[in-house]
Amino acid sequence: MPATPGQTQIGFIGLGIMGAPMAKNLLKAGYKLNVYNRSDRPRVQEVLDAGGIRVGSPQEAADGADVVISIVTDTPDMEAVLIGEDGAIHGVKEGAVVIDMSTVSPKATQEVAAALKEKGVQMLDAPVSGGDVGAINATLSIMVGGEQAVFDECMPVFAAMGTNINLIGSNGAGQTTKLCNQIAVSVNNMGMAEALMLAAASDLDVQKVIDAISGGAAGSWQLSNLGPRIAAGDFDPGFMVYLQQKDLRLVLQAANDIKLAVPAVGMAHQFFNIVERLGCSEEGTQALIKAYEAQAGKEARAK
Amino acid sequence: MPATPGQTQIGFIGLGIMGAPMAKNLLKAGYKLNVYNRSDRPRVQEVLDAGGIRVGSPQEAADGADVVISIVTDTPDMEAVLIGEDGAIHGVKEGAVVIDMSTVSPKATQEVAAALKEKGVQMLDAPVSGGDVGAINATLSIMVGGEQAVFDECMPVFAAMGTNINLIGSNGAGQTTKLCNQIAVSVNNMGMAEALMLAAASDLDVQKVIDAISGGAAGSWQLSNLGPRIAAGDFDPGFMVYLQQKDLRLVLQAANDIKLAVPAVGMAHQFFNIVERLGCSEEGTQALIKAYEAQAGKEARAK
Repeated sequence: MPATPGQTQIGFIGLGIMGAPMAKNLLKAGYKLNVYNRSDRPRVQEVLDAGGIRVGSPQEAADGADVVISIVTDTPDMEAVLIGEDGAIHGVKEGAVVIDMSTVSPKATQEVAAALKEKGVQMLDAPVSGGDVGAINATLSIMVGGEQAVFDECMPVFAAMGTNINLIGSNGAGQTTKLCNQIAVSVNNMGMAEALMLAAASDLDVQKVIDAISGGAAGSWQLSNLGPRIAAGDFDPGFMVYLQQKDLRLVLQAANDIKLAVPAVGMAHQFFNIVERLGCSEEGTQALIKAYEAQAGKEARAK
Repeated sequence: MPATPGQTQIGFIGLGIMGAPMAKNLLKAGYKLNVYNRSDRPRVQEVLDAGGIRVGSPQEAADGADVVISIVTDTPDMEAVLIGEDGAIHGVKEGAVVIDMSTVSPKATQEVAAALKEKGVQMLDAPVSGGDVGAINATLSIMVGGEQAVFDECMPVFAAMGTNINLIGSNGAGQTTKLCNQIAVSVNNMGMAEALMLAAASDLDVQKVIDAISGGAAGSWQLSNLGPRIAAGDFDPGFMVYLQQKDLRLVLQAANDIKLAVPAVGMAHQFFNIVERLGCSEEGTQALIKAYEAQAGKEARAK
């Protein structure tokens, strides 16, 4: 890959809530982007206005690119845009690097990496955390799997999108790390829900309890950031329940692939099923508390 | 209660790992202490050397005291030293305040508070978190239940022992808040364990995964403070497993008292049973990972 952004051609696949601002940050850093998105959206136009050139397929996006970046919703989407009928694999040149930044199956990632390797193409899996705010501000955490030399080569590209950038291990390791992240996220969320529900069911002021316990050993990002939203009855998304559920399905599949029992995250997934049945799939993940409120017949709020 | 520490007599019951340094901080602040401890220990002598006067029963400790403080292990101990045969209730004068800083049952607390009230004595429940380090440095978090005026009156006493001091509600509210704290502590611990176990069982370097995920939405006190100990194979206590189990029994009893289901903390309690069966009751709570290591046949360590 050329060292200078202006000489590096990137094919960017997937201009979603995350992908669109990430693409804009790459353009801002001076990279040339051919972009592909399945559908038309205002945010696609924003990327074109910032200098991106729209093409008609993942294959075309990969054509002539030094780096191909994909960030799509789920494992089948990733497989389709990278190794499907008009996938990037049919356009990408030998020596290029494919970086998949979706959150998908570690096992499928290893299979796609192997298919690309046969064509002389290296792959990195590089899922992110930090939400749309991190994508917009280029402060994403990026968890990478692949070879050290390829990681080093791509560091300037990552640095245009994120701040906490770590190579964890070989192909799939980035995805597995993201799944570890989602385990802690969802189980900590459940810990918060049970703590706040005991408080509420005991007629305590939920916000006072949050203030009293969040600075010590009970502290978590979930409690500090989502606890006050619960206390205020604010269920607007940050991260939506149905996307959390997709990630938990990946966790449960990955655990089953290696025959590892993860009962707490299994339980969190079940409670989110209750939340989805209540019609709250598109609320923020703090809506997990609603599964508890439903059984307790009481809301967990500040007084 | 007199406003000046030098004129305030405190009866202090329970010179354990927490109680002894708390008593020393009260002496340092200028309070006069009559102290009671069941057994002889080097740390009892340290309190006497700092100016405490030893007496032979909780009743004697309470005799003439403006404030009686108890900090003992479990609910029956608290009941014994406050309302038992030679308990503080038989020595304490009308208008005094009893502050129980043990972690015990909210329901039993309300019963003891009612018994004391009949004698014209106010009670505050004021359990703490922050461990022996917080007790030594007078930086404990103190979660208080009782009346506002009594809380305000006792604030100088609390301020000699802690920093984050909150009145949550009426009698029992402090204990309930401490149980909420222990729910989040133990469930977050389980979230960490499942995250690190997926990493280890996938052959990742556990410390690298901790570094990659602890700064974001997966972050918690448990992950930042206990995760690196697990990765290093260090199971020395901070907070011992058997004491965590005692607190979880209180959580499960309190939840049953109000007929609230808290399945995640119930699961954490079960996993700690596995840890205790492995002979690790006196290790630190990070030993929860051993329940997972036992089923996975693999240790969660840095590489």
